[in-house]
Amino acid sequence: MSAVFTEFDLMRDLNKTGGKIVLLVMDGLGGLPMTPDGKTELESAHKPNLDRLAAEGSTGLSIPIRMGIEPGSGPAHLSLFSYDPVKYQIGRGVLEALGIGFELGPNDIAARGNFATAAPDGTITDRRAGRISTDECVRLAAKLQQATGAMFDGYEVIVRPVKEHRFVFVLRGPGLGGDLTETDPLVTGLPPLPVEDNSGTPEGAKTARLINEWVAQARVVLADEPKANSLNLRGLAKDPGLPRFPEIYGMRAVALAVYPMYKGVARLVGMDVVNFEGERPEHEIAALERCWNDYDSFFIHVKKTDSYGEDGNFEAKVHEIEAVDAVIPRILALQPGALIVTGDHSTPAKLRSHSWHPVPTLLWSPTAMPDPVRLGGQDAAFGERACAGGYLGLFHATNLIPLVMAHAGRLTRFGA
Amino acid sequence: MSAVFTEFDLMRDLNKTGGKIVLLVMDGLGGLPMTPDGKTELESAHKPNLDRLAAEGSTGLSIPIRMGIEPGSGPAHLSLFSYDPVKYQIGRGVLEALGIGFELGPNDIAARGNFATAAPDGTITDRRAGRISTDECVRLAAKLQQATGAMFDGYEVIVRPVKEHRFVFVLRGPGLGGDLTETDPLVTGLPPLPVEDNSGTPEGAKTARLINEWVAQARVVLADEPKANSLNLRGLAKDPGLPRFPEIYGMRAVALAVYPMYKGVARLVGMDVVNFEGERPEHEIAALERCWNDYDSFFIHVKKTDSYGEDGNFEAKVHEIEAVDAVIPRILALQPGALIVTGDHSTPAKLRSHSWHPVPTLLWSPTAMPDPVRLGGQDAAFGERACAGGYLGLFHATNLIPLVMAHAGRLTRFGA
Repeated sequence: MSAVFTEFDLMRDLNKTGGKIVLLVMDGLGGLPMTPDGKTELESAHKPNLDRLAAEGSTGLSIPIRMGIEPGSGPAHLSLFSYDPVKYQIGRGVLEALGIGFELGPNDIAARGNFATAAPDGTITDRRAGRISTDECVRLAAKLQQATGAMFDGYEVIVRPVKEHRFVFVLRGPGLGGDLTETDPLVTGLPPLPVEDNSGTPEGAKTARLINEWVAQARVVLADEPKANSLNLRGLAKDPGLPRFPEIYGMRAVALAVYPMYKGVARLVGMDVVNFEGERPEHEIAALERCWNDYDSFFIHVKKTDSYGEDGNFEAKVHEIEAVDAVIPRILALQPGALIVTGDHSTPAKLRSHSWHPVPTLLWSPTAMPDPVRLGGQDAAFGERACAGGYLGLFHATNLIPLVMAHAGRLTRFGA
Repeated sequence: MSAVFTEFDLMRDLNKTGGKIVLLVMDGLGGLPMTPDGKTELESAHKPNLDRLAAEGSTGLSIPIRMGIEPGSGPAHLSLFSYDPVKYQIGRGVLEALGIGFELGPNDIAARGNFATAAPDGTITDRRAGRISTDECVRLAAKLQQATGAMFDGYEVIVRPVKEHRFVFVLRGPGLGGDLTETDPLVTGLPPLPVEDNSGTPEGAKTARLINEWVAQARVVLADEPKANSLNLRGLAKDPGLPRFPEIYGMRAVALAVYPMYKGVARLVGMDVVNFEGERPEHEIAALERCWNDYDSFFIHVKKTDSYGEDGNFEAKVHEIEAVDAVIPRILALQPGALIVTGDHSTPAKLRSHSWHPVPTLLWSPTAMPDPVRLGGQDAAFGERACAGGYLGLFHATNLIPLVMAHAGRLTRFGA
């Protein structure tokens, strides 16, 4: 027991072996009706399997960050994994690096890089360089790597492509750190900003100086590119060294996701990541089936619900929920001890954005309290307003892992 | 005001005189339906008085420890008394000692002792010595007291019977302490373990050494016993010196309970304990009536609901709830300012065990908001799923005492 006994210490003390758990996350699941008397995306979907699970299990609404706070993808997932995202803050650069499978070390500062277009005076005219192709991104990253990788004595520069205009920048070497600002002015027509350090430490000052030198040199290297003749760095950060999920909970844990960000957050807490062919829910479930015997805890991430919400495409989001419903029997056939279906946050098509609305959540297990199916005038058992009357109530998302472990018989009694 | 202003400081500032409060606890009250479309024990019970109180008062679901955590009896009761059990952790030995009315002092280390049966090689063959009779327990404890009570210079050994195979061991003397492990191997076929100290302090090392010497000598004393020829010590601990309930809340507080554990927890927070003849709810209420004028706050503990849940006896648990319902009019006749009816945790007959499910809770008072009676297809006003839609929502059990005090007019305004 550490000097200050934490919730994680409690979980370390109480975890035991038991049934397998599944955390099925539809990104941006929560929605809103387009008109006051309408239904949400989730309430509109024809999803007999999810509705049955909601009636047999318990439902509620989960709060990813705090009431009223619109979550980013990284912190929203940390919260699902039981890490309070206000306490455990992580730079975007770290998530981006982990998302492409980059093995971030303790001496590394990582940033999310964006290729950009600049006017002759250096002001940014397109923050995404016209969304260049991923092939172009690969070529440009290699060019920068070649030209700048060894520009510092004693410090290594690593540049890796992600997709379209996005790349990862890593500066590796001893004594790096600080609290570093971003170069992106966030609007076009302004010049990029210098990286500054707010920590006031010698490490921060040195790191800011080295990165500013690299940015200047990189812009020289890119000067003759027609579109991507500039770049910006965002979210400069080190791996925060989070407590390890498998160690806290005593579970072999794996993530099944298509998009880099979600693989990245999972790696950050120590989950394995299994790669697979295909991008549809059925491909993810096929991968789940293949690795079922190798793990205790399975995180499955479905991205498109969020993407369609961001696009304002209500109907496409409904159809994606229905596509997930169709694979539910394959998950149940594996006989998990307990299953959670939820989102990381809400992305109502009506708002075309992530939002702060709490997230409909269902917990199914043979040991769950069957919910009162309260329809509140909506004819779906699994829906935002049915969940508002559910047995689990309104709760912080960090409670989900302990809850699902309890239902799967993976927690011992606290105290005599 | 102390350096860190706590919730208890708030209560010290705000408490005032007012109506009397009653906390009626049916141990393990929460349950589950045996089939997904069935009713829980509480929903099944014919309990017109409790249903009426629920309809006139407010209901909700309380979380004893944390969401997903299965509570032990000690911490679950601390939570009802408003002490966060993750913050205030108490050894089983302390609870056991207080439960038999033993006056634990600041120099005492207490343990729960279990008489056990051992093979000739010392391995444990029955961890409960065939559940010997309480008479046998009394004889054996006296034998150990006689033979080992004065075996140390400067330290006193006290051995007291509890019931069946259980006894209390206390080592009393200066400079005892540490973070001590248990001797019980928890499964048969293994030898007992030595007590070890994890604190790394001189006190801990000395205490472990003395207790190991006592255990060895006690096994010699018991060697010729046919069943109870060995023993184990569990939950070695000191009185944690909790803040006093009567002082925090400005109430004369009493506990009415049959079983030692619950008297023990009540004493630990400074409540008086009134002993009485009989073990049924009506005997407890008779005791309540006798001491009504002497106290402001009354904790009444009903054990059998939990026992029947542990036995998997759904019907007997239902009947015990009905027996409690029958005495409700006698409580109301005393005209309490506010009354809470709840459990310390759930013990669903379906699971034959304590469980993590939140606990149905009702708060009745002339100042309470009458609940919307949402039956959710279940025809009981006081039931798990009706409470899930109750006005009090889902809340931590530590809020109950402030809530019931407010309803009884015992808290002043916070701020001007």
